[in-house]
Amino acid sequence: MSGERRPRVVIVGAGFGGLACARALHGAPVEVVLVDRHNYHVFTPLLYQVATALLEPAEVAQPVRQLLQKLPGVDFRLGDVTGVDLDARVVQSDRGPLAYDHLVLAAGAVNDYFGNREIAKRSLGLGTLSESLALRNAVLERFEQAAWTEDPVQRRRLLTFAVVGGGPTGVEFAGAFAELVHEALARDYPHLDLDRVEIVLVEGSSAPLSTFAPKLQRASQRALEGKGVRVLSGAKASAIDEQGLRLDDGRTIGAATVAWAAGVRAASLADGLELEQGSHARLKVLPTLQVPGRPEVLVVGDMAAIPQAHGRPESLPMLAQVAIQSGRHAGEAIAASLHGRSPQDFRYRDLGTMATQGRNAAVAQIGPLKLSGMLGWLAWLLVHIVALGGLRTRLLVLINWAAAYLLTERPVRLITGTTERPDEQEA
Amino acid sequence: MSGERRPRVVIVGAGFGGLACARALHGAPVEVVLVDRHNYHVFTPLLYQVATALLEPAEVAQPVRQLLQKLPGVDFRLGDVTGVDLDARVVQSDRGPLAYDHLVLAAGAVNDYFGNREIAKRSLGLGTLSESLALRNAVLERFEQAAWTEDPVQRRRLLTFAVVGGGPTGVEFAGAFAELVHEALARDYPHLDLDRVEIVLVEGSSAPLSTFAPKLQRASQRALEGKGVRVLSGAKASAIDEQGLRLDDGRTIGAATVAWAAGVRAASLADGLELEQGSHARLKVLPTLQVPGRPEVLVVGDMAAIPQAHGRPESLPMLAQVAIQSGRHAGEAIAASLHGRSPQDFRYRDLGTMATQGRNAAVAQIGPLKLSGMLGWLAWLLVHIVALGGLRTRLLVLINWAAAYLLTERPVRLITGTTERPDEQEA
Repeated sequence: MSGERRPRVVIVGAGFGGLACARALHGAPVEVVLVDRHNYHVFTPLLYQVATALLEPAEVAQPVRQLLQKLPGVDFRLGDVTGVDLDARVVQSDRGPLAYDHLVLAAGAVNDYFGNREIAKRSLGLGTLSESLALRNAVLERFEQAAWTEDPVQRRRLLTFAVVGGGPTGVEFAGAFAELVHEALARDYPHLDLDRVEIVLVEGSSAPLSTFAPKLQRASQRALEGKGVRVLSGAKASAIDEQGLRLDDGRTIGAATVAWAAGVRAASLADGLELEQGSHARLKVLPTLQVPGRPEVLVVGDMAAIPQAHGRPESLPMLAQVAIQSGRHAGEAIAASLHGRSPQDFRYRDLGTMATQGRNAAVAQIGPLKLSGMLGWLAWLLVHIVALGGLRTRLLVLINWAAAYLLTERPVRLITGTTERPDEQEA
Repeated sequence: MSGERRPRVVIVGAGFGGLACARALHGAPVEVVLVDRHNYHVFTPLLYQVATALLEPAEVAQPVRQLLQKLPGVDFRLGDVTGVDLDARVVQSDRGPLAYDHLVLAAGAVNDYFGNREIAKRSLGLGTLSESLALRNAVLERFEQAAWTEDPVQRRRLLTFAVVGGGPTGVEFAGAFAELVHEALARDYPHLDLDRVEIVLVEGSSAPLSTFAPKLQRASQRALEGKGVRVLSGAKASAIDEQGLRLDDGRTIGAATVAWAAGVRAASLADGLELEQGSHARLKVLPTLQVPGRPEVLVVGDMAAIPQAHGRPESLPMLAQVAIQSGRHAGEAIAASLHGRSPQDFRYRDLGTMATQGRNAAVAQIGPLKLSGMLGWLAWLLVHIVALGGLRTRLLVLINWAAAYLLTERPVRLITGTTERPDEQEA
């Protein structure tokens, strides 16, 4: 290596954290390589709309190389990172090794099945684009199967859907799915009585959206129930078998389809590094986002157990905003270190959280401001349209949202590809 | 069965022919069941734009049930029709049997590999939505592989693409693919020299678009060559192996990717019926579209060998217009037979043909009118926008076309799902 070689930063993951880091390194005297197993960046907050036949993949996913065109110093490599040799400073991938001087781990999170392989196999997640497409295919397929069957017991099972997990993902999916069923699909299947479709949202704590203010929890539950979702709180999923979803209180929900939104854990890459892991398998980091004893390795976003500022015991939550802000901080820290400056502690700025329950219904909690109903929904709409990148994407999404809102239409109700759980992650 | 039972018409296939037939039966005193292995109708003339990252599936595919909402007498069943018991008058499918009084076979065509299983396995078709998505994934994947490799021989192979078949499908794909490479992908891969990408169109006859007037053939070839496509006429594909595509004149095109547009044959359902088949395995029908000796069975579109009006030996070509017009005729014939009228002969009205080679270039042959270049392209644009169904679809397609035309942008260059040939048809 010549003395003139620029230091090389390898960023693992092109999600919110990895991209923010690459952007923060723009102009720094480094060579940046961003690696991801997909060639696209996903706007994950809208994946549930792919699963409910509202949006197409290209409306929530953008080619990574397109996003990098504005960052000429950043190279992209498609590859599945399988491990890191921390001593040799080499990232291993299914397509070859990548040496680094600085490493940023931003591989995100995967569904957490709490070690239950049966649940992993028999449920459908909402964590990736492939998972959301498979869930869309699976729910549409159930209605087609119901159209063939003459057996009322079988038909009832086909038209019962369980959603496990009352966090924002489960709540948003359940609300949008209820609207899909009672609006677009009700017209599709005049011979099926879709008023009898059961959508059951199962939440372990006392109410869905447990991280929101109690007032907003109640508003959200009322909105879901108004759309025909049955909310089962204080119940945990224990198994899935031929009969349906078994709960720990002994009850069974006779559902042919179980959507799994009960939680996520750090991507499996975190497990193989022999580094200390916190809850949800996240990698423990210093307040600077550096791995203890490895100052050249930083971890950001869902993959990192980032300490809270005021010594609170829990790490920062798994949110897009945490990923974006910590990714940006990591990029700035590396750029600063090239000028000999020592790294600063990361400070998270809470911009609030929101969750929608479908048309005209969302809850939003922004500092002291608490919105629900129509006002919350307008706030949700505005934030998401602004956050979506690009004029073309915004136009396409707005057209589809207008079709859904004004015509109760879901044009993307296509069964394309598999209805099986995609084979891209382990339980 | 009670005497009041309405006769049941089963239509196999929700393509252009099957849908036109269902529409023609609207209002007739029959029960209609339309069965297809997919829950969507595909606007096949634009599939090549899915394969070249211009359009999303939902822009070329519409849910069949949505199209049937205007036809309340028509029921849809998702199912793969595996055979027909012509004596018992029962259609067999993977999901159950369907009895009929009248049967319309409109299952369309599949890629013709002329019995060569190796070619079937190693090439990628453009006949279905899944095939077009797999082709898109495969070509994008090649560029990602090329970004990893240091070996110039391997890189050259990865960046050489063969398109077999110079009919409209092959020509349209090659032109749109050349634009994708030299515009959008050239910006994506600043480190690859994409001027060295080879796209070779292989055509067995003396020039591409052999069914068009010689003047238009020349215009089309010039347009393709101007976009960087190498046209190899008078050469036939004989094999595909590790080295690439073998031609019957001994030459080899060292391509890692072979797109197959060399011809189609009737869907395999046609083979199992013990009915007489013509060229391309199409089912022979009377001028009334009825199967000889089975007046209750009609065949339409690509699946039927429909005699030409003036005693010419060839059957009508495999075109969307033939499918639409013959499907409509079949529906009208069944409706007329219920009133005791004997079936009329089908008369095809030639509305012309067209093929585009990308931006500002298309050839169109409409009666005595022959257009090429910009004029042909405007005609192509107009016809396709009019033919696409629905305001929403038209808006979305126009936005994507505008992005491609004005910004040379291809927003759908996502690798989602498999890069393998989908397993939905046999060789």
